[in-house]
Amino acid sequence: MPKVSVKGTVMPASPIRKLVPFADKAKKDGRKIYHLNIGQPDIETPETFIDAVKNANVKVLEYTHSAGIESYRQKLSEYYSKYKIQVSPDDIIVTTGGSEAIQIAMLVCLNAGDELIIPEPFYANFNCFTCTAGVVIKPVKSTIENGFALPPISEFEKQITSKTKGIMICNPSNPTGYLYTREELEQLKQLVVKYDLFLFSDEVYREFCYDNKEFVSVMHLQGIDNNIVLLDSISKRFSACGARIGALISKNKDVMASAMKFAQARLSPPTLEQIGAEAALDSPKEYFERVKKEYVERRDFLVKALNKMEGVFCPKPSGAFYCIAHLPIDDSDKFCQWLLESFEYNNETLMLAPATGFYATPGAGTNEVRLAYVLNKHDLEKAMICLEMALKVYPGRTTADYRTLTISNKE
Amino acid sequence: MPKVSVKGTVMPASPIRKLVPFADKAKKDGRKIYHLNIGQPDIETPETFIDAVKNANVKVLEYTHSAGIESYRQKLSEYYSKYKIQVSPDDIIVTTGGSEAIQIAMLVCLNAGDELIIPEPFYANFNCFTCTAGVVIKPVKSTIENGFALPPISEFEKQITSKTKGIMICNPSNPTGYLYTREELEQLKQLVVKYDLFLFSDEVYREFCYDNKEFVSVMHLQGIDNNIVLLDSISKRFSACGARIGALISKNKDVMASAMKFAQARLSPPTLEQIGAEAALDSPKEYFERVKKEYVERRDFLVKALNKMEGVFCPKPSGAFYCIAHLPIDDSDKFCQWLLESFEYNNETLMLAPATGFYATPGAGTNEVRLAYVLNKHDLEKAMICLEMALKVYPGRTTADYRTLTISNKE
Repeated sequence: MPKVSVKGTVMPASPIRKLVPFADKAKKDGRKIYHLNIGQPDIETPETFIDAVKNANVKVLEYTHSAGIESYRQKLSEYYSKYKIQVSPDDIIVTTGGSEAIQIAMLVCLNAGDELIIPEPFYANFNCFTCTAGVVIKPVKSTIENGFALPPISEFEKQITSKTKGIMICNPSNPTGYLYTREELEQLKQLVVKYDLFLFSDEVYREFCYDNKEFVSVMHLQGIDNNIVLLDSISKRFSACGARIGALISKNKDVMASAMKFAQARLSPPTLEQIGAEAALDSPKEYFERVKKEYVERRDFLVKALNKMEGVFCPKPSGAFYCIAHLPIDDSDKFCQWLLESFEYNNETLMLAPATGFYATPGAGTNEVRLAYVLNKHDLEKAMICLEMALKVYPGRTTADYRTLTISNKE
Repeated sequence: MPKVSVKGTVMPASPIRKLVPFADKAKKDGRKIYHLNIGQPDIETPETFIDAVKNANVKVLEYTHSAGIESYRQKLSEYYSKYKIQVSPDDIIVTTGGSEAIQIAMLVCLNAGDELIIPEPFYANFNCFTCTAGVVIKPVKSTIENGFALPPISEFEKQITSKTKGIMICNPSNPTGYLYTREELEQLKQLVVKYDLFLFSDEVYREFCYDNKEFVSVMHLQGIDNNIVLLDSISKRFSACGARIGALISKNKDVMASAMKFAQARLSPPTLEQIGAEAALDSPKEYFERVKKEYVERRDFLVKALNKMEGVFCPKPSGAFYCIAHLPIDDSDKFCQWLLESFEYNNETLMLAPATGFYATPGAGTNEVRLAYVLNKHDLEKAMICLEMALKVYPGRTTADYRTLTISNKE
């Protein structure tokens, strides 16, 4: 029997999805599960999207241009300009989800063995995309004590070697919800210039910035156009995760020419969903105002509920729809599995993402979980009751209290 | 300015799509182009597909299971059993097009540096997927004289080294239209067993076998379940190229467990299109009968028209909707570009795929092109008139006649 490859063996299982079999089992046993483990919002996809697909009147469902439908790229460029991101349709390749954008960017910009610096905790699937490309992640640890702000730039510089080829961020951040400030991005820029690095930025949550804080894109940084690769997706923006429509954006012509070869190899992104995505750009402003208001209310409820629980701490995020909470537990992987396998309260339980999968440093995140506030407040309330009950009876509960940490932004 | 990666540099441009900019220019100049260059049929997608998407009544366009919608995989397993391919839903991962199925299979089964034997000419994008995985293609040349039948198995065995990890075929073949016989597949099986290799088979054209010839799947080969990886797609079956729905199928549990990690990394295939694909499996039998009849008529017309032209030879294929023709030209890349840049007949021209991109052996295919008979007969007729005229005036026409070859199946 021929063996699977080394990559196939070392490729990490998604910490977000690896618990799925346990969840499937729990559901089959009749238990209700509150899914806070995955960034799958319950928010309705805009009608403009759905209607456009229904009315597309497609007779032959053809491939599109490998870079995406031209009119869609044109409208995307107009959309970006509203965020003061000035890109032409030629600077955009429509991808099959943000996932493909990240994967192509890794393959195009980095060689096997190259090093990529990422502040941790980071989007767990970065591990998979770097594994495919043979790239080594060098993590720089951000901490829950100061809400996962950008670590001191000196910590980044310490990680730089002759193999360092880029820095990657997610802004606002999945999994922390942290929104980078202009000052933080300017610091990254200095490093990018000094060492001539790529700066990859996953900005799929740009619509979701709260408390009137300013969203700053890496595309706003002056004079480093050739270093910037922007990664985007409509999954969260339009609550259209299943559309699998993203984008890879850069003004670096070599990067785009090379990315285009990868795009051509897989022929095209899905056609119907591109039609929907183009139409969704015409969604009324009220759509986002309503969605944003909803997320803010959920965040406020969730963070407050978490911080009320004994031994729990959760900094208040300013963007996206995630937060990371410290829990009084021995091992977040065990705890999350136990929630699905062995716990129920009124025949209900909840699914969380162990934070270990978001760290590259071994041992980090063992007493942290990521929560996605993608459920309505009623369900969130029920989920928080479940969590509180679960923490009371979990056999691996620790007595270590979070109060030993210096907490600046606990609610 | 940071440099693109080695892979980004050496990744071959798709021979099918690299002429697109010249085609775009010709269209902007007002010329009509007959597209015989790409497997994009003009056949209508089944109404069952389109209607299912319209009536899906989706409120939140969610991710699906990373392996694909469960009910779809269940129906796929029933579909395969009609072809005597006995697989369970767990043996199937729904992918984003056949492209992703191939890419994941390469990454899961082969290490960088491993060798993969493929009879050439082969689907050009195999070059891209092996490039991404760092895999080396060892071609075994099939020849136009005998219609691109499987080369002698001794030629395969000659290519085997300590690095050989698999053999890949496409059946019926893109780009040749050749349909492998049971005997040929049994020969491959012997080699697979002898050297414990993976046998990858791209069978996306199984519905399109002509002249009452039998379709044999690698899944029909007994006793090598752990060696077989089947790659599939609905793009051609349901003329739904833009759906980007394929499948990776294997009974090798290790392969599937590893493939699942890659599938989870990219979250899920497109949701709406999976709904359509599931419904399309209920398309009436008449749909395929009609489509098949149409393809046979086109093939018969095309092959006859080509073989009538002076210096042209095209073996008659038994499957898929492609053929490879020998043309009296110096260089098929130049010729195909010239057709778009410099030729017109009644303000029309045609786009072909240079066969060079389908060979790994340097210099092979320089006087061959691939034609996809994906246009209606009226357009095919016009395209053949264009081609005949073009061959008369092409500056690089050669006098070398094909009649020097031993031709067994010229019409």
